[in-house]
Amino acid sequence: MNDSREVIAGMLERYKVACFSKDIDAFAELYDANVRIFDAWGDWSCEGLGPWRKSAKAWFDSLANERVLVVAERMEISASGDFGVAHGFMVYTAVSESGAELRSTRNRFTWTVEKRSGTWKVVHEHTSLPLDLKTKTALR
Amino acid sequence: MNDSREVIAGMLERYKVACFSKDIDAFAELYDANVRIFDAWGDWSCEGLGPWRKSAKAWFDSLANERVLVVAERMEISASGDFGVAHGFMVYTAVSESGAELRSTRNRFTWTVEKRSGTWKVVHEHTSLPLDLKTKTALR
Repeated sequence: MNDSREVIAGMLERYKVACFSKDIDAFAELYDANVRIFDAWGDWSCEGLGPWRKSAKAWFDSLANERVLVVAERMEISASGDFGVAHGFMVYTAVSESGAELRSTRNRFTWTVEKRSGTWKVVHEHTSLPLDLKTKTALR
Repeated sequence: MNDSREVIAGMLERYKVACFSKDIDAFAELYDANVRIFDAWGDWSCEGLGPWRKSAKAWFDSLANERVLVVAERMEISASGDFGVAHGFMVYTAVSESGAELRSTRNRFTWTVEKRSGTWKVVHEHTSLPLDLKTKTALR
């Protein structure tokens, strides 16, 4: 793995830890100020870190007595120059304080990262679930 | 716009023309042999140009007396070194032979492109519609 790919792999680890610890500052730190998010849920897009931070904060706040365990599957990372990409699947599992699994969902996950002023940041995130062509509901 | 961004903008135009003319060879030419597709419909992923070409061919074949007009909205293109990214919205409108609009759908659209052996190819495509959190159906 080259240096840039290691940095991006490290960012994915920081993402998982930020979600598990519901640490909104550590989470927001990963993203560029002008990030464009295509999130799986609720909106066509979220433009800029301000609204995205608010949205993540609302998610963390909704997890009163729960934590979310994030596990990557078949994640592929590549990088060249000041650009990098990661794509794969992310499984989000909500667990209770006693460690019981409450529910789980799998997303397709794409990150575009850029090195700006010496620091790598996520500039675009696209997460989704595929749709059934007939019912137009999420495939499980 | 730098040269790489112009190349990627040109690829997006070729994509639109290939869809409109249902030209499977011109369509397949855009993609890398090892492309990974996260398509909005039907499957979690499609790995490799073989299956992706088959899927696009089935789509074109299903459009007996129709054509599909593809229009990009708010497409952002960036590139550095041998890497490029495009993300925005794509509106696919089916039109009859007489030019009447039959139906239309909008996707979020992300392309990752790489220059390999001197030629730019799409190595990852992610298209999706956002989901309503309550109903788990596609947002319109």
